[in-house]
Amino acid sequence: MSNAKVTPISGFLEFLPEGRIVEQHFLDVIRRTFEVHGFASIETRAVEPVERLAGKGGDVDKEIYGVVRLSAPAETTEAALGLHFDLTVPFARYVLENAGKLAFPFKRYQIQKVWRGERPQEGRYREFTQCDIDVVDVGQLAAHFEAEMPLVVADAFAQLPIGPFRIQVNNRKIPEGFYRGIGLTDIAGTLRIVDKLDKIGPEKVAVALEEAGATAEQARQCLALAGIQSQDESFVDKVRALGVHDPGLEQGLAELAAVVRAGHAVRPGVLVADLKIARGLDYYTGTVYETQLIGHEDWGSFCSGGRYDALASDGRTTYPGVGISIGLSRLLGLLVGKGLVTASRSTPAAVLVAVNSEEERSASMAVAATLRGRGIPCDVAPSAAKFGKQIRYAQRRGIPYVWFPAAPASERGDSVKDIRCGTQVDATATTWMCPPEDLVPQVTAVSGD
Amino acid sequence: MSNAKVTPISGFLEFLPEGRIVEQHFLDVIRRTFEVHGFASIETRAVEPVERLAGKGGDVDKEIYGVVRLSAPAETTEAALGLHFDLTVPFARYVLENAGKLAFPFKRYQIQKVWRGERPQEGRYREFTQCDIDVVDVGQLAAHFEAEMPLVVADAFAQLPIGPFRIQVNNRKIPEGFYRGIGLTDIAGTLRIVDKLDKIGPEKVAVALEEAGATAEQARQCLALAGIQSQDESFVDKVRALGVHDPGLEQGLAELAAVVRAGHAVRPGVLVADLKIARGLDYYTGTVYETQLIGHEDWGSFCSGGRYDALASDGRTTYPGVGISIGLSRLLGLLVGKGLVTASRSTPAAVLVAVNSEEERSASMAVAATLRGRGIPCDVAPSAAKFGKQIRYAQRRGIPYVWFPAAPASERGDSVKDIRCGTQVDATATTWMCPPEDLVPQVTAVSGD
Repeated sequence: MSNAKVTPISGFLEFLPEGRIVEQHFLDVIRRTFEVHGFASIETRAVEPVERLAGKGGDVDKEIYGVVRLSAPAETTEAALGLHFDLTVPFARYVLENAGKLAFPFKRYQIQKVWRGERPQEGRYREFTQCDIDVVDVGQLAAHFEAEMPLVVADAFAQLPIGPFRIQVNNRKIPEGFYRGIGLTDIAGTLRIVDKLDKIGPEKVAVALEEAGATAEQARQCLALAGIQSQDESFVDKVRALGVHDPGLEQGLAELAAVVRAGHAVRPGVLVADLKIARGLDYYTGTVYETQLIGHEDWGSFCSGGRYDALASDGRTTYPGVGISIGLSRLLGLLVGKGLVTASRSTPAAVLVAVNSEEERSASMAVAATLRGRGIPCDVAPSAAKFGKQIRYAQRRGIPYVWFPAAPASERGDSVKDIRCGTQVDATATTWMCPPEDLVPQVTAVSGD
Repeated sequence: MSNAKVTPISGFLEFLPEGRIVEQHFLDVIRRTFEVHGFASIETRAVEPVERLAGKGGDVDKEIYGVVRLSAPAETTEAALGLHFDLTVPFARYVLENAGKLAFPFKRYQIQKVWRGERPQEGRYREFTQCDIDVVDVGQLAAHFEAEMPLVVADAFAQLPIGPFRIQVNNRKIPEGFYRGIGLTDIAGTLRIVDKLDKIGPEKVAVALEEAGATAEQARQCLALAGIQSQDESFVDKVRALGVHDPGLEQGLAELAAVVRAGHAVRPGVLVADLKIARGLDYYTGTVYETQLIGHEDWGSFCSGGRYDALASDGRTTYPGVGISIGLSRLLGLLVGKGLVTASRSTPAAVLVAVNSEEERSASMAVAATLRGRGIPCDVAPSAAKFGKQIRYAQRRGIPYVWFPAAPASERGDSVKDIRCGTQVDATATTWMCPPEDLVPQVTAVSGD
């Protein structure tokens, strides 16, 4: 049914089965972590009205994929629809639509594909999976949630074969108050320039700030603030040493200190106060997060988010929220693409049940049914070929065990062979069990060079 | 950030958190079943070139959603893209694209959303989730796979709270050979008319057949064949009693008998040979499947599929396949929508850890961290309100247990209360465990009227 020429579409990532097993492992760990932390899953439809998508998310307007029924009549009355480009805009709409039926504060996680029409490049896709958690409340949102978000992510990342990582935290009130305190008036413009620090370096940032109207001393102060980092609350004294006074600055310092203190208590060294982090999106109003893999800082942030005082609003009620989003496809595109993480096999099957002859296939099926009933994933050989060929079927897929049902005329019963080492033992399908690490494919880091 | 008026979009199903927990349970059972049967997961991108989608899948051409970058230049050189309307067309393309890297026979499962622009109605959506398994091989595909597909589905359905079901099986070679044997020439046209039997009844089918050129006797024979059903191989004798001879008919009878025999051996009564089943799609060439919930036959088929001799072809190599697809959204839209299946709570949390005072929040967080480390999903009270209010937080979400950390000045240690019955016991976070059925939300059938 498919004769047309087949070519990949740039920006759309698809894994081979082994890569998909890596992805499933990551998804399973992330989901389990979100759930033990008490977040409830929701899924929203892939489409939103274009008018709801447009104007949201800063620069992404131009990246929206429109969706239209090819057979729709020209004079359609249906609203123009577009694919969502993040999970925050649909979540905000879901909260408004279902506010009367949800229990607040509402803690939800959402793991779905999103689409952006931007130019594809390494680690950037037009279709990608995001894993989001958010807490949203009515009117007011307790500050302690801002400390909990990065700890949930740290809990997930610590269980994944991605090596050491750091979650950088800042509070938008700190630079905003600081800039006011030194007499700058274009706060948003200053944030945008300082946000380029890692890309263009301090000299060019200073030039850009002065071009935007700052004095040399103001530019120096902005760079001094952006240079402050600490794994504990010592960043507070470093900021105070710059001698700038502003009520918003003080509030931001207190809030960020609380986040860093909570992080330090649970997982020392993972959360870092890093006062250059600003996040591009305008709607963050408090804590903001970014996440780097240590040793792969040039890959950028894999997990970002922050607090917004108005995640959603229906005009009467405002819903503040705080959230964080793991960019899973970005992370996996690099880790799997570069061969840094691999799966031990390309199928869930732990056992291949061999077939003595096509007449005896039902005996092999019965063995498989017994093993499956006990939770052991298995496959049955597709043909009663020579055992050497059946074993190669298992080897090609990385299946560790081959089960040999007793031949009808044989005195010997069933046996099972670990084809990695060649050890073969007598076995009964009702009692045999492999070590737990063989039950599911193992996903592990490969030491790079 | 979201002030525009919020209205649902017809045909796009979204669940509240409790309904989503039902959906997750179904997805988990289906995935686990596919995996113990040795199927490997793949996911394909949401979009395919429109030219690949168009002309596939019979009548669904007109239902394709086109996708276009809203900011694309008018004279774009990019291929026209559309959202996939099933998982078979993308799978066939994936097989061709990765043929050199896959191990054949390739057993894959795929659980993804698909989109069709058709008119929404009860149980029919414009965005819905399908759960597919297929086996595809190079050149030839062993017949035993045709018996295994429905058994995998039966294994999954037997673990779900959907009540009794029947999988109806037929083989396209039977009606095709039979129609040839009685002298009809428009085989496809006859199939299409007989396929309407359940909708329009035998009299109207007879009229339509005669209008299409059949004699009254030929129409009577077609209806006689379509009326044959059996849970065992007895359908073969019933067909032979009609006195029609054709080599294709004989081959179809032998193949269907093998499928029914294998099904009867493993799960008696679930597989039913039902000779009126034809499936609309033209590309099926052997066994075809449909599935009904017993007592809800009017809901239609929730799980359908069949064998195709040319699932994919690149002109040189042909890939035959057999597959079956669970229409999960259709099933859940009805079961959840009618309140026939519910979840015991609206959050994964089994425990709410109470907070004595905001100063002691870190003690509650420590209890939660210990419980989470032991796999017990829990939430921490959002505020140190009166315990009555904290308990109501748990009740509203269906969380069964509330944990009370020891107050600093108290001699009594931690305790945990089952708020369903009021029983409160002393407990230690390092050792306490709830019954396994409380660890995850329970998803159960509600007896309807």
